Amino acid sequence: MNSAQDRLWQITEYPFQPDKQLYHETIFTLGNGYLGCRAAFEEGYVGETPTTLVHGIFNHAEGALVPELVNVPDWTGVRLWVDGTAFHLENPGDDWLTPPGGALLGYRRVLNMREAVLRRETLFRAETGSTVRVVFERFTSLVDVHVLAQRITVTAIDGAPDILLEAWQEADTTNLGRVHWKNIQTATDAEEMTWAGQTTQSGYRVALASRLSSPTTVIAVNVPTPILSSSVQLDKDGQAVFEKITAIYTNRDLDDPLSAARQKASEAAQAGYDALLSAHIDGWAAYWRDSDIQIDGDDESQIAMRFTAYHILIAAPQHDDDVSVGAKTLSGFGYKGHVFWDTELFILSPLILNQPAIARNLLMYRYHRLEGARHKAAANGFEGAMFPWESTDSGEETTPQWSDPQPDGTRIRIWTGDNEQHISTDISYAISQYWRWTGDDEFLLNHGAEIVLDTAVFWGSRAEKTDSGRYVLTNQIGPDEYHENINNSVFVNRMVIWHLTEAFALLDWLQSHAPDHAARLTDSLKLTRERLAGWRDIIAHLVIPFDSQKQIHVQFDGFFNLEYVPVPNYEPRVGGVWPMLGHQRALESQVIKQADVVMLMALLGDAVGPRHVMLNNWKTYYPRCDHGSSLSPAIHAWVAARLGQDDDAYHMFQHAAMIDLQDNKGNVRDGIHGAACGGLWQAVVFGFCGLHLDSEGKPQLAPRLPAHWKQVSFIAYYQGERRQFVVQNPVLDAP
Amino acid sequence: MNSAQDRLWQITEYPFQPDKQLYHETIFTLGNGYLGCRAAFEEGYVGETPTTLVHGIFNHAEGALVPELVNVPDWTGVRLWVDGTAFHLENPGDDWLTPPGGALLGYRRVLNMREAVLRRETLFRAETGSTVRVVFERFTSLVDVHVLAQRITVTAIDGAPDILLEAWQEADTTNLGRVHWKNIQTATDAEEMTWAGQTTQSGYRVALASRLSSPTTVIAVNVPTPILSSSVQLDKDGQAVFEKITAIYTNRDLDDPLSAARQKASEAAQAGYDALLSAHIDGWAAYWRDSDIQIDGDDESQIAMRFTAYHILIAAPQHDDDVSVGAKTLSGFGYKGHVFWDTELFILSPLILNQPAIARNLLMYRYHRLEGARHKAAANGFEGAMFPWESTDSGEETTPQWSDPQPDGTRIRIWTGDNEQHISTDISYAISQYWRWTGDDEFLLNHGAEIVLDTAVFWGSRAEKTDSGRYVLTNQIGPDEYHENINNSVFVNRMVIWHLTEAFALLDWLQSHAPDHAARLTDSLKLTRERLAGWRDIIAHLVIPFDSQKQIHVQFDGFFNLEYVPVPNYEPRVGGVWPMLGHQRALESQVIKQADVVMLMALLGDAVGPRHVMLNNWKTYYPRCDHGSSLSPAIHAWVAARLGQDDDAYHMFQHAAMIDLQDNKGNVRDGIHGAACGGLWQAVVFGFCGLHLDSEGKPQLAPRLPAHWKQVSFIAYYQGERRQFVVQNPVLDAP
Repeated sequence: MNSAQDRLWQITEYPFQPDKQLYHETIFTLGNGYLGCRAAFEEGYVGETPTTLVHGIFNHAEGALVPELVNVPDWTGVRLWVDGTAFHLENPGDDWLTPPGGALLGYRRVLNMREAVLRRETLFRAETGSTVRVVFERFTSLVDVHVLAQRITVTAIDGAPDILLEAWQEADTTNLGRVHWKNIQTATDAEEMTWAGQTTQSGYRVALASRLSSPTTVIAVNVPTPILSSSVQLDKDGQAVFEKITAIYTNRDLDDPLSAARQKASEAAQAGYDALLSAHIDGWAAYWRDSDIQIDGDDESQIAMRFTAYHILIAAPQHDDDVSVGAKTLSGFGYKGHVFWDTELFILSPLILNQPAIARNLLMYRYHRLEGARHKAAANGFEGAMFPWESTDSGEETTPQWSDPQPDGTRIRIWTGDNEQHISTDISYAISQYWRWTGDDEFLLNHGAEIVLDTAVFWGSRAEKTDSGRYVLTNQIGPDEYHENINNSVFVNRMVIWHLTEAFALLDWLQSHAPDHAARLTDSLKLTRERLAGWRDIIAHLVIPFDSQKQIHVQFDGFFNLEYVPVPNYEPRVGGVWPMLGHQRALESQVIKQADVVMLMALLGDAVGPRHVMLNNWKTYYPRCDHGSSLSPAIHAWVAARLGQDDDAYHMFQHAAMIDLQDNKGNVRDGIHGAACGGLWQAVVFGFCGLHLDSEGKPQLAPRLPAHWKQVSFIAYYQGERRQFVVQNPVLDAP
Repeated sequence: MNSAQDRLWQITEYPFQPDKQLYHETIFTLGNGYLGCRAAFEEGYVGETPTTLVHGIFNHAEGALVPELVNVPDWTGVRLWVDGTAFHLENPGDDWLTPPGGALLGYRRVLNMREAVLRRETLFRAETGSTVRVVFERFTSLVDVHVLAQRITVTAIDGAPDILLEAWQEADTTNLGRVHWKNIQTATDAEEMTWAGQTTQSGYRVALASRLSSPTTVIAVNVPTPILSSSVQLDKDGQAVFEKITAIYTNRDLDDPLSAARQKASEAAQAGYDALLSAHIDGWAAYWRDSDIQIDGDDESQIAMRFTAYHILIAAPQHDDDVSVGAKTLSGFGYKGHVFWDTELFILSPLILNQPAIARNLLMYRYHRLEGARHKAAANGFEGAMFPWESTDSGEETTPQWSDPQPDGTRIRIWTGDNEQHISTDISYAISQYWRWTGDDEFLLNHGAEIVLDTAVFWGSRAEKTDSGRYVLTNQIGPDEYHENINNSVFVNRMVIWHLTEAFALLDWLQSHAPDHAARLTDSLKLTRERLAGWRDIIAHLVIPFDSQKQIHVQFDGFFNLEYVPVPNYEPRVGGVWPMLGHQRALESQVIKQADVVMLMALLGDAVGPRHVMLNNWKTYYPRCDHGSSLSPAIHAWVAARLGQDDDAYHMFQHAAMIDLQDNKGNVRDGIHGAACGGLWQAVVFGFCGLHLDSEGKPQLAPRLPAHWKQVSFIAYYQGERRQFVVQNPVLDAP
């Protein structure tokens, strides 16, 4: 039950829902931009996947197709005995009154998003009849990201039980069975336990140190894993409070992570849980001051906005410009922690406007990987920089070429690493957005411009000139991944034109504002007169498939020759239409996986064409999309709002809002849909509120709120200035 | 997914949740005050309990302990074949793409409470690969309560399937195996099918007639049960609409229910589904104009208010003053349809203020059963009228004396029928409330006063005079049923004093306003001078247990000698504390089942004592209550709001609001908690808004809204005048 004050800031599991265990592990993930920790239980539970992922720690396990983010040892482990009965969860069911071996009498777990604290309250009866209340609370400090804190409070409700608590550290941890650690060393002394290990291939070194405080003596053992234990005899109504404080470092932070972790754990334990928590909450208050969107008139949407903002913030690196946010954030093994376009075109928008320093970190991650992008371009016979579709620490393409074996033993060829090339333009688009909103010229001069220009160089070499003098782009994959290796994607081709045009705009700006940088880049990137002439020729002559009779864009060459499937008729459905049709028929149909032409209309707005074409495009492509990708609904909401399609806009917004909260794609267990989180923000700020930069580069609103929303209020930074925007529906409800 | 417009008027199941089947059957119950129909599926499903309960049709099955409301044959049955594959539900799960024998590809069920229409949309694929969308819609007409309408729309989405639809009527129906029907006769002709039967013991006669309309020929058979069937060959994208219209009558309505049902079915089928639906929606619009409480600032509470109002309205008899609303309304077999104090002290309040004509019907139900109450009094050696704790059609006590056998073969003695005697005063309290709010003198003169006075006669004979000249009431059961056969319940004794005092007030009023009636009742009820003197003596000397040192009421003699159990420590719990302690220990403890002294403070307000005593009572009894009864939380919310205990008030309100919606008592499968529905209304109107009649009998507000509520708006009738009340929180949120 939510308190009145926190009702729009909380997600609750009550009572225990064992069938939704992995779902709750994901949605209750904690994090601080340094690491993410799924909400597995302290004492363990069958089928759980305790997972802590630290930004940047990738490893290529033996026999695996690609590298992945590495699960570090579970630091949360706590076992508890009450009069000798092991504390454990179970589904009360009908026989809950007298189960053998103790009984769970009550359970509630609450994620407080305002404070980023996860709290589990339980009521447990031991075999002896003693009943205790056990409250587990934990957070990952936002203000000192190496500090991970737990407090376990045991209260005697009935009887005077003996309590034994064991705080432990996992020694051998895998990613669902894939081994990533070697040279593991564990140790304990009277006050602490430590773990240190190294990743098998990449050689990262990680160390943890934990301390336990108890009302009584703590005893340390290290067999077979590190354990700190303590016994307390509780009086009737008595209470015992245990604090487990863990510190974690990697050799990405400093050279001796073990010493640092020991030192930090000692300091943090000295400070104590309450002081750490207080600072943590203050840190989150500062985050929320800039990142909270307030919606008046729709509680469900309000909670969804906070939920999505929370999950972006806990994954966003505050202090590290050499990592980025993967498609599933740090909340699960899905997509192995790899970074896709999801980051630049979905997750980045709220950060650019609300937390620009973090947005810069994410863009710097790409800058630091320009060499990898240049390597990929060269390896594929192109010039300039061609960013990988899936990116890890190395900067190399890490999309697997083949799938894992299917049930029949065959593998499926995965083409996105080869042909989903729009990622380079997506990154350039994000840089342009960042620069225009923040006015961060320093970033542009020293980092951003080089990316935009060198990826433009790539496209200059990639576009194929035909005999007629027109340019085409063959063998592409657009956002709609149901259609692979197609020719002349409207999305891709139009964005390439935008990209090359933006490159000229940047060059002009550089020449007038920073001629030294213009000269440096012209020289280093070989922006010769011929090359620039080639760009101009591409801008003028790159094919944009358009049906002038119907006045619509044609998603790619031949799209309308495919079978038409009336997607809206397939309602209400549980999954996508694609699996219902079967792979082969779906490929040969007009079913679209996600916003594609519609995505283009979101990114470029009115520049895509006159209003009647935009509306025709909407009416053509919206009913063909099955939203097989979680990236799709929010973009549709955004565009629908801009086009005045209010019912569609709210319907798509709701779909997007519930992707994680109601698990409406069915795979939340694998991690949070990070892009859907950013998309929801875009749907509200760019869609319903219509925030945009006008032709003079000034922020303007063009509100189109859902009819029942009374007001939306949010912060956006513009050119370093913090601005509050308040959008009200013109007619407020009369009493 | 809710549409924006209806988002606060809908309850949705999406996707199909087979593990919550019986929960959804209950919460999606339809009704029109004549009957209620649980939301079992048209085509059937394993474990379902299709149930239609008609007001007033009770029967005592052979071998059963007591009579119960009788399940009439399921009128909703429809079977569908698509290319020969039987339409059926199943949990898609992981293998949903190619299950044998057809597949459910999509499912959404929505109860629209504004229109009282239940709609189920499904997507189904036959073995042949043909895919159809099937929409089942149904309602029980509010404006012609004998008419039950269904529409089944089948649309070909993929392929051109053969459709066979069979509309059927169940012939043999039981109450979970208990047989109530004899002399069953079924028949069909080309246009209709009929069912007629008689209850085994009570001899009620019920008849149904159904008609099917189809785009093609309808064929009737009657082997083994009545079936009307029709086949349609659908073109690709083609659609077939089937309407099944059923009429139902009983011999409580007229003498020949079968002829009436046939006539009505014919007329209604002639009118057609659309016309029937349109009138039905208009009827509900009129209901909602008076019964909708609008809460601004809390969507979850808004939905809960509508949900509870809906469930009271669908069970409230518009046209029948000889039936009442059972504890589980007409939505399930729980409590066998019996009528308890739940009706008068919980369900009646919203009806008195919003739908006074229906409230009058419910009170007349008691008037018609005065003879039963007099019989019970006489049989127990008392005078006057003593209403049964559980009441059915007969007016006799129908509480079973013994439980069904327990697992060990023993039966438990049930004392409520003997000793929970406050029901007679609860009815009188409701009559007083009804009269004072409505000003319905006619009802008072001809019906109400007789009940109040003759139940006062009962108490006059029931109170026990001690040697000291004081009066006591021994062997009582108050609202807190954990403590049986106790002496001097504060609730009972104080309400008896209220009752006798009210009897004098009524007599005074009668003597000055309607001396003929005063004389008639004085004569017929033998209100002699001695008898009235006895009442005055009881009022003056009936014991009210009070601890003058602690300045609190003592729930009953010896309450504080029982073991103290700190109930609030037993959090978070899944059930009550009572079962955790075990029966024997619980009986000997201070754990309270539900509002008892707190209930008294709700009913009598400041008359219970000075404010410091009220607060002391609150602080004493609130932490001792485990809310083992669903009647408890809303009353606590009401009283907490009046006492300025704002956090407790909202907490208890939320608990009450979620009893059915979140099934937080775990027994929604047995039926809606009708009293909790009425209680929620009381918590808002009497509690948060503080609506009351002042010392001059005029309505006044004393608002104490939850801090985040911006406004509450509702209608209340006062003395025949329709008034709108709008309560705003003094400080609206600043932007």
